Amino acid sequence: MTEAMSPEGLEKALRAIGEERYHNRHPFHRLLHGGKLDRGQVQAWALNRYYYQSIIPMKDAAIISRSADPEFRRAWRQRIIDHDGTESGEGGVERWLRLTDALGFERDYVMSGSGLLPGTRFAVDAYLHFVRERSLLEAVASSLTELFAPTIIAERMAGMLANYAFIDSKALSYFDKRLHQAPRDANFALDHVKREARTPEQQKLVMGALTFKCDLLWAQLDALYHAYVAPGHVPPGAFKADADG
Amino acid sequence: MTEAMSPEGLEKALRAIGEERYHNRHPFHRLLHGGKLDRGQVQAWALNRYYYQSIIPMKDAAIISRSADPEFRRAWRQRIIDHDGTESGEGGVERWLRLTDALGFERDYVMSGSGLLPGTRFAVDAYLHFVRERSLLEAVASSLTELFAPTIIAERMAGMLANYAFIDSKALSYFDKRLHQAPRDANFALDHVKREARTPEQQKLVMGALTFKCDLLWAQLDALYHAYVAPGHVPPGAFKADADG
Repeated sequence: MTEAMSPEGLEKALRAIGEERYHNRHPFHRLLHGGKLDRGQVQAWALNRYYYQSIIPMKDAAIISRSADPEFRRAWRQRIIDHDGTESGEGGVERWLRLTDALGFERDYVMSGSGLLPGTRFAVDAYLHFVRERSLLEAVASSLTELFAPTIIAERMAGMLANYAFIDSKALSYFDKRLHQAPRDANFALDHVKREARTPEQQKLVMGALTFKCDLLWAQLDALYHAYVAPGHVPPGAFKADADG
Repeated sequence: MTEAMSPEGLEKALRAIGEERYHNRHPFHRLLHGGKLDRGQVQAWALNRYYYQSIIPMKDAAIISRSADPEFRRAWRQRIIDHDGTESGEGGVERWLRLTDALGFERDYVMSGSGLLPGTRFAVDAYLHFVRERSLLEAVASSLTELFAPTIIAERMAGMLANYAFIDSKALSYFDKRLHQAPRDANFALDHVKREARTPEQQKLVMGALTFKCDLLWAQLDALYHAYVAPGHVPPGAFKADADG
């Protein structure tokens, strides 16, 4: 890459990364949305994904803490409000717990993280480290997977409601909200990187950040597939459907 | 845990963690040592494990950087010397590259990390973050997996030499050295934690650190098994035996 892309060229390159690497293409999601998983496998997914949800407000606060621009900070703040709500019992993290409730988990167990796959923990923690250590531009760019979220969410809601007797629309209330929150957030972040990433080096960092984020979402599903679908090698200490569910 | 264990009781508890969680029990290692993998699968193991080897001197330097005790620092320094050698072309990292040489990789490809599994990267990076962020006691304790290394190394060398025509003793020179380095290092670290971890809280942190380290070794093999053994879902961008090997 010797010359900078236009902002539109950069957007096109970012969308191409999502086409290849976003986790809607992972076989675990095809099984999940297609109704091919049993209750224990859906439990494992919801339990592990909770850990990812739970750090999102910390991730967004780390990003805010790195910006000297009040306008940027005010806009990004909405993400924390969305996930944490304005009082106890509200917000996206709480709505994810309604899903784990519906799947029969005790909240203490879910929130303790004691049954997590190590692979989940390492991938999710890598996200926190990334937004704390890399440039603000890269931290913002790592959120761009939300560009690709609406499609997977719509597919997930329809597929899970149609296929799993143990899932109802209340259990999926998290995704209802994300359907309009994700595009708003993604467009803000996309405008930011298109405006700020003007040199070839910056554009390369932005593309690397989105690739990194796709990788960490993908790795979470790899860990789930390996442990709970085939060949079923649950690591020592992680949730086992028969024993703990 | 209401009362502190004796130093001997703590050692026993640590050895019990290794019994349950050390990666000699992982099915990937059973396949590797039993000659059940093909060349591409052994390549994938050596390529991914290189990334782990490559950060060991950084990990050990982070530990040294946290100690105010010259005696501790001098003892720990040997680990860096062992891995990096005293000049170019020496040391444990170099010896690992002799293994990837023997398996037909270009060194540039191995050292670039471009074919790594994301799961490898997240697990290995978690180790670096752990030793930088946790207490020195926990950082030292996380090295205690070396207590269990000699058995697996001896088994690995015998198994790989017997079973793989593409592996000779020169390719395994890394492990020759580790057979005597690992017990020396492990005994120093074990003495340290037995001496320093006297309260129940400290002992719990030490056991947690060893569990964490076992988890990250295990997760690396989970990622390999998932991608290269069964069901063979190589993530986008990672090494593929047919295409890259």
